[in-house]
Parts: sequence; structure tokens; C-alpha cells
Amino acid sequence: MSSAKTFDLVCVGNAIVDILAEVEESFIAKHSLTKGAMQLVEPERAAQLYADMPRTVECSGGSAANSAAVLASLGGKAAFIGRVAADQFGTVFVHDMTAQGIAFASPARDHALPTGSSLIAVTPDGQRTMNTSLGCNVNFGSPDVPADIIEQARVVLLEGYLFDKPQSKQAFREALRYAKAAGSQVALTLSAEFCVHQHRADFLELLASGVDILFANEEELMALYKTDSWELAASKVDEHVKVAVLTRGAKGAVVRVKGQSPVVVPAAAVAKVVDTTGAGDAYAGGFIYGYTRGLSVAECGRIAALSAAEVISHLGPRPQVELAKLIAQPLAS
Amino acid sequence: MSSAKTFDLVCVGNAIVDILAEVEESFIAKHSLTKGAMQLVEPERAAQLYADMPRTVECSGGSAANSAAVLASLGGKAAFIGRVAADQFGTVFVHDMTAQGIAFASPARDHALPTGSSLIAVTPDGQRTMNTSLGCNVNFGSPDVPADIIEQARVVLLEGYLFDKPQSKQAFREALRYAKAAGSQVALTLSAEFCVHQHRADFLELLASGVDILFANEEELMALYKTDSWELAASKVDEHVKVAVLTRGAKGAVVRVKGQSPVVVPAAAVAKVVDTTGAGDAYAGGFIYGYTRGLSVAECGRIAALSAAEVISHLGPRPQVELAKLIAQPLAS
Repeated sequence: MSSAKTFDLVCVGNAIVDILAEVEESFIAKHSLTKGAMQLVEPERAAQLYADMPRTVECSGGSAANSAAVLASLGGKAAFIGRVAADQFGTVFVHDMTAQGIAFASPARDHALPTGSSLIAVTPDGQRTMNTSLGCNVNFGSPDVPADIIEQARVVLLEGYLFDKPQSKQAFREALRYAKAAGSQVALTLSAEFCVHQHRADFLELLASGVDILFANEEELMALYKTDSWELAASKVDEHVKVAVLTRGAKGAVVRVKGQSPVVVPAAAVAKVVDTTGAGDAYAGGFIYGYTRGLSVAECGRIAALSAAEVISHLGPRPQVELAKLIAQPLAS
Repeated sequence: MSSAKTFDLVCVGNAIVDILAEVEESFIAKHSLTKGAMQLVEPERAAQLYADMPRTVECSGGSAANSAAVLASLGGKAAFIGRVAADQFGTVFVHDMTAQGIAFASPARDHALPTGSSLIAVTPDGQRTMNTSLGCNVNFGSPDVPADIIEQARVVLLEGYLFDKPQSKQAFREALRYAKAAGSQVALTLSAEFCVHQHRADFLELLASGVDILFANEEELMALYKTDSWELAASKVDEHVKVAVLTRGAKGAVVRVKGQSPVVVPAAAVAKVVDTTGAGDAYAGGFIYGYTRGLSVAECGRIAALSAAEVISHLGPRPQVELAKLIAQPLAS
């Protein structure tokens, strides 16, 4: 991959501040939530959920932003493109990006809507259930995508959650076009099963128009190919992308590189799963870190698995240790 | 103590959202900070410090508010009196109070200044160095103190940090007057050595006008009596209060009850001190919990020490477990 690029990774996604609480199992049923899912909530519903949540901690989140944080913690160079408002959560979000040396490439401040936030209920089993108020992220569009930043990316990561409104879809297509013209590779995360259900045709079109790397968990992949057989879905993905990183939770992941045999990557051991928030984001960030350094698929997977394991071992979606040190022990070959 | 009161504890203090970061030791010298201290910062200085801080987590703090959170976690009933603004940090602060069943007794929202926040640099030794932007707390005054809430307190806890401006001092005197008229006891924390240096005469006058319980660490107590002998200062405190809870960090505490022999309370064991933020606040909350239940001084001290130990074993100033369970094993007698 070209080494003349400024950034290993440029992420395009929702800017979100996470509001995390450890809840009892009964909280999920009481509020008719779908455990493990992300759902969008309107202000009234958010207020109702928040009022019933125990004490919280707040920290920066957002799927692609978490991937950028992981890549930066591994020692890579990242930029983030997304919308924040001129409010306290916006200040927090931008701080936590720049504090890790991540270029925050969207200085425009929204004054009509607040910075996005997500009420995250973490159950005793470590599962996270997210209730997201998108806030000013809903206004994301082409003007938010600076061509000169995209062109400086080895890999551009597009976050499926943001692929929702007509103007954000258009922005993704333009980002992809800037990237391809500049020789940057494009990665896409499907983000959530409901995103695939809602926008399946547009996702497939986006994949066909030049996505190089796909990140998908089991439900997302099966939704994409409208099948209840993961194996069948996995066999179809080579038609669309060069590299498919197919995560399978505690079972680890399968990485398919076009023209090569699939590589099974085991999950890394975790003493106790505290909070799965950000697990997939960390996996993507870790994998792309290795990928931009030309490492083997197995080594990319090892870094991804270790990154995800660190993130799920504590509350909050971003690494709490320097991942560069954590992965310093190379894979036995 | 009268059991007809609604609240075990009514706290009067600054409403603060903590912005916590684990920093290298060098951060303290680089920014000319006084390690372990709290200093007030203006917006420009706060921005400068924040820009140099690594990734942060945000959670509700404030000294007396932390004491209320500890008492509530132990199973007591608390209320909080303090000012927040109509912003995201204000929403977070009020949520975290009400989520613990703590009555938030100051519904008035400030629209001119933001909710107070504190940039807290936590060094590898677990010490916290606080840089506080008071925000709308500076406007605290008599109109913020509802007599009917004060009158429903077994104990009213006044936070020394807030005893700063003429209007807040006046508010404290009125709170004390309401309390005494209603048969409520009054506790005071000296909060920080610099507070005592700045307001020594007024603190002494407040003590003389009816404070029942004093919380002070070594530096604060010696500053109050202008001596470098802690023993000498401790011997003087009986002149002013019925109960003096004199904390000594890792050495534990000495509790002096007028007319009784001082009781030495050992500190509780902590596997690793992660962050001392809120240690003294937890001690006060735990002690008052026992005190309002008529427990022995030794038992009050045991609960206080266990509460403080829990709080310093993780990042952030408020308990992360239900303290009622933690203390359930009674003191061997």
C-alpha cells in the first residue's frame, strides 16, 4: 500500500458520547429492549430510559470513532470525519479524539441539534444494549466530507450506522469516489442487523461500487444475503469484496481474502466480559492497523482479537491501556 | 436523634462533573500543578490543561454530593442542594443524584454559566490533582437554600469548598440557622487547606455558631488552628464541636467526641489505590450514615473507612458497588 499517505485510517461515522450504566437483567424486559441491539430513540423515549437508569459514566464512543481510537492506541495514524455540536458532549468527543492524536476533520459545529449520545445498558452478562439519540449526526452529508482528508487515507472506514439518510448515503458514495480516485482502499462495517434490513439494496450497491474490505458479524452477514445459513452467506461475500472480516463473537472470526483459503482467527481470552460495547469496532480498528502494515491475515486477526478482548474487559468502548504494548509479543510463526 | 426527619443527610455543596484522566507523573510539573490539591481555574487555563490531558471519562462528582452518594449507597436517605445549569453536564449531574434516590432540592436552572466541572489529573500513585471550573456554582446564595429541606435533615453537611463568596457564606449561615431551629445537626467539611487559609476567621465563626460535627484532614486542621502540630490542633477542636472526625490518610482517622477519649480508627485495606478522588467525601458520608443510626464511634469509623477504601480502588469519586452489602459484616466486638 502507498506509504505516501498521511493517515493509515480515515473513519467516517457518527460522533457519539456514550452514557453507560450497569443495569439489572430486568431492565431490558421492563423497557421492552432488544438485548444486544442498537436502537434509535427519540428525545421523549431517551428521557424515559435515562430516568430509570442507575448512575452512569460518560465517555466518547461512536463505532468508527472507536475503531480510530484503537488504531491510534496501536500506534497508527487516524483521522475522523463526523458531526458534533457546540456543546459539552461535543467538546468531550473532540478532546478524546485529539488527545489520541486523531485528526478531527470536521471542524464545523452544529448549533441546531446536540451532539449525539447513546444510553447504553450493560447487563450482568456484559452484553450492551444501546439506545442512541443521533442529535446533529442526522445532518451529516457531503459538505462534511473533505476530499483532501479522504485522499490521504490508506484505508477509509465507512460506518454502516451512518448510512441511513439520503444525504449521508450520498456522502458515503462521494467519500468512496474520492478514495478510489486517490488509490485509497475502502472498508465498510455493516454495524447492525437492522441497518442491513433497512438499507440492503443500497449496501449491496455500495459494496459493488468499490468497497475493498467488509466487516460483518453473523447476523449482519446473513441479513445481507437474505439467508439463515452463515456458511452460504460467507461463500457469497467474495463476489463483492477483496477482504471479508467475518466476526463470530466468542467463536472468533473468519477472514476471507479473495483467491485464498479462509483463515480462522480464534478469539483472545478474556478473564471476565464486563461490557461488549465497542468489541466489533475494536476488531475493525485492530485488523486495519495490521492490514495497513502489510501483516499476514493471521497477524491482523491476532491484533484485532487482542484489541477487542481489551475493550470488552472493562466498561466503555475504547482501550484503557496502550494497545501497542499489549500486542508487542508477536505471533509465533 | 429524631426519627421524624425525612432525610438522614442534606448536603449543601458545589455541583461538579468530574473529567478524569490518568496522566503521567510529568504532567503535574509541566503544568505547575500542586499534586493532591484542588485549584480553581479560569476558562483559558482549563482549556490549556484539557488540551494536554489524555482521554477522559466523565462522571458526577462534587465533594458533598459524593458524600450524599455514599450515604445513599449505604441505604440512607439523602438530599442535595446545589446549582446546575441547563446543559448536558447539568442533566448528567441531576440524573446521577436522582438515580440513587437522592432528592435534588434545587430545581432552579442557571442559564448564564455552565454546570461546574473539574479536570482531574490522576497520577500513577493514585493521587488526584483537581482543576475546577466552578461555572454556575459561583452564583450560589440564600435563594438556593430551601428551609423546608434543611429542616427535614437529621444532619446537614456544609461543603467548605462552597464557603467562598459573600453570598455563599451568607447562605451557609442561613442553612445553619434553619437547621438549629429545627433540631437538625450541622456538619462541616473544611475541604482543602487553601480554603482554610482564605476563610479561616469565617470558618471559626461558623464553627462557633453551632456546627456539631467537623471533618478535617491533617493539613486543614493545622491550618485552622495555625499550628504545625497536628496533636495541638486536635486538642483544640473540642472547644468548637461535639464531634471531630480527623482523617489522616493511610494512617486512618481519629474521632474526638467531646467528653470522651479519642477513638483511633484504622484505614481499611486497599489492594491498589487507583484514584483518591472522593476519599474524604466517602469517609464523611460513611461516618454520617452510622452516626444517624446511633452506631458506636468505632462502627461509624469502620463504615467510613470501608466506604473510602471502595472509592479509591477505582477511577471516579463515587461507589461502584452497593456499599450496604460491603459493610454488612458487622464489627467484631
